[in-house]
Amino acid sequence: MQVIVDFTVIPIGVGVSLSPYVAACEKVLTDAGLRHTLHANGTGVEGEWDEVFAALRRCHEVVHQMGAPRISTMIKVGTRTDKPQTMAEKVQSVRTKMGS
Amino acid sequence: MQVIVDFTVIPIGVGVSLSPYVAACEKVLTDAGLRHTLHANGTGVEGEWDEVFAALRRCHEVVHQMGAPRISTMIKVGTRTDKPQTMAEKVQSVRTKMGS
Amino acid sequence: MQVIVDFTVIPIGVGVSLSPYVAACEKVLTDAGLRHTLHANGTGVEGEWDEVFAALRRCHEVVHQMGAPRISTMIKVGTRTDKPQTMAEKVQSVRTKMGS
Amino acid sequence: MQVIVDFTVIPIGVGVSLSPYVAACEKVLTDAGLRHTLHANGTGVEGEWDEVFAALRRCHEVVHQMGAPRISTMIKVGTRTDKPQTMAEKVQSVRTKMGS
Repeated sequence: MQVIVDFTVIPIGVGVSLSPYVAACEKVLTDAGLRHTLHANGTGVEGEWDEVFAALRRCHEVVHQMGAPRISTMIKVGTRTDKPQTMAEKVQSVRTKMGS
Repeated sequence: MQVIVDFTVIPIGVGVSLSPYVAACEKVLTDAGLRHTLHANGTGVEGEWDEVFAALRRCHEVVHQMGAPRISTMIKVGTRTDKPQTMAEKVQSVRTKMGS
Repeated sequence: MQVIVDFTVIPIGVGVSLSPYVAACEKVLTDAGLRHTLHANGTGVEGEWDEVFAALRRCHEVVHQMGAPRISTMIKVGTRTDKPQTMAEKVQSVRTKMGS
Repeated sequence: MQVIVDFTVIPIGVGVSLSPYVAACEKVLTDAGLRHTLHANGTGVEGEWDEVFAALRRCHEVVHQMGAPRISTMIKVGTRTDKPQTMAEKVQSVRTKMGS
């Protein structure tokens, strides 16, 4: 099952700067060979359900290893059976309706 | 890795009533032997990372089989390495601070 | 506009225990006279859009005053025009489908 | 209070294509004069708390007027008191840690 996911990892109990942990998760996704896009409030990633969630689990493991005793992650998951769709196509679909 | 998850499944393109799909996902969790609690805006579930996310995948499969061409699911994921904690303990911890 | 909201407040940069902050937000909701229900992974609240979001803003103010330099909050918002519905009715609707 | 928000609006009971509704919400944000960025799984927006949530309320009103009887919206809200920060700076902060 193909999935489009958007997630935000929040390490708890390690200070106010989160970017080193986000950077570490970006590396996990790259190492997993998953297509992904960083934005201001999270990261979008697309791929097979099992591969994507294995990478998110790996991300939790890495962030714990970096010293975070607690992690809260927010994940949006989209699947569809009517047609295949990439993240790029989702953005394009909105832009077309906006006439741009 | 032990995980506490809270999720909301939203089938898209199948009408305004979502409760039959939520009920189907509750059954998936029960069949998987995972401890879970329904609340007004989602379902809490606790267990091993791989088991919990396999159940969520199964839930997506079941909801698609029920006729939903598209699903958007919101998942909150919590892990911690400092101590084990159940969902019941999380609620109790807040209630203690509230003096009730 | 009537709204049902479910939210989770995560103070960042203040240590691993979040329950004192959650308890403070519960008090904000009680003081605002809003019907609300604590569960393991968040709090459900129902009321008029403006009153609910004013309370959530107040919650952020209080948690900052308690010493959190940064807060990340996850909010699910539901509105409907087909019929009025309470949080209690949402749970009951699923339970009916589950035959319980 | 300055806020960075990321939101995803999901109209329920209106078919499988969501992009016309997303486009309508983008227009609401533009008309409100709020800085915002569309991505594959939502929209980031920054501004004063009250202005941002008034725009999100307006977005719900518009999507209901377009025919959606029910809407579920997911919102991530970030506030901080330690320093001002824009969405562009959040992305840059991660990129710096990634050495790019």
